[in-house]
Amino acid sequence: MSETIFGKILDGVLPCHRVYEDEHTLAFLDINPLAPGHTLVIPKQRVAYLHELSDESAAALGRVLPRIARAVMAASGAEAYNLLQNNGIGAHQAVFHVHFHVIPKIGGRGLAFKFVPGSLSSEDATKLLGLMHAELG
Amino acid sequence: MSETIFGKILDGVLPCHRVYEDEHTLAFLDINPLAPGHTLVIPKQRVAYLHELSDESAAALGRVLPRIARAVMAASGAEAYNLLQNNGIGAHQAVFHVHFHVIPKIGGRGLAFKFVPGSLSSEDATKLLGLMHAELG
Repeated sequence: MSETIFGKILDGVLPCHRVYEDEHTLAFLDINPLAPGHTLVIPKQRVAYLHELSDESAAALGRVLPRIARAVMAASGAEAYNLLQNNGIGAHQAVFHVHFHVIPKIGGRGLAFKFVPGSLSSEDATKLLGLMHAELG
Repeated sequence: MSETIFGKILDGVLPCHRVYEDEHTLAFLDINPLAPGHTLVIPKQRVAYLHELSDESAAALGRVLPRIARAVMAASGAEAYNLLQNNGIGAHQAVFHVHFHVIPKIGGRGLAFKFVPGSLSSEDATKLLGLMHAELG
């Protein structure tokens, strides 16, 4: 994949407001925050999509998310927050290096989304699970 | 915390369409899917919020997310998808047991959200980072 702005941050070519860093992950403030304290958490593994992450990268990323959430809460005073992670242009991904948004909800500020739930028939469930179990091996 | 419907699924008191299970995690089809293949991934640790998860639970959860994403893609045919994880009533959390939504984007179906980005001043960044670094220790 071609170099992204997050790759350039990892290389030290672009600056960031660093929140946290370890062997496998980096967290920094989003410069276009939806609310104060909005933080991005990225793996050092340079892949565009979550489904491309190694087990090791993915576990390291998962491990730090609660810590970053605690830091976001402490800094923003927010008691509610959302995590969002987008994959693909159709899902509004803008930077093609895996990243989790940790977005505090402060009054009307934060992530606004709409749930339009459907329903799941037994027939659909059986068909989906067949395909999923085949993929998971 | 009082028993949630996800706790009851873990106990086997309520059924689920199981996608995947290991020592620390369980994934199952959302019965009110935003798009076909919409899957929930939960830790077996019974806590309401992400920031309460142990390192071990959080790492196990992170590790399986890419696998579940691959299964959701295989089952739905979607090439784009979003992960969403809500904490607190203000952030639209409905079941008070940590869960990640893996939501395929298929045409107009999937997660709809709105980004209203702000900007981050150097002064704000310095103040936020002071609080975050104090929290992270």
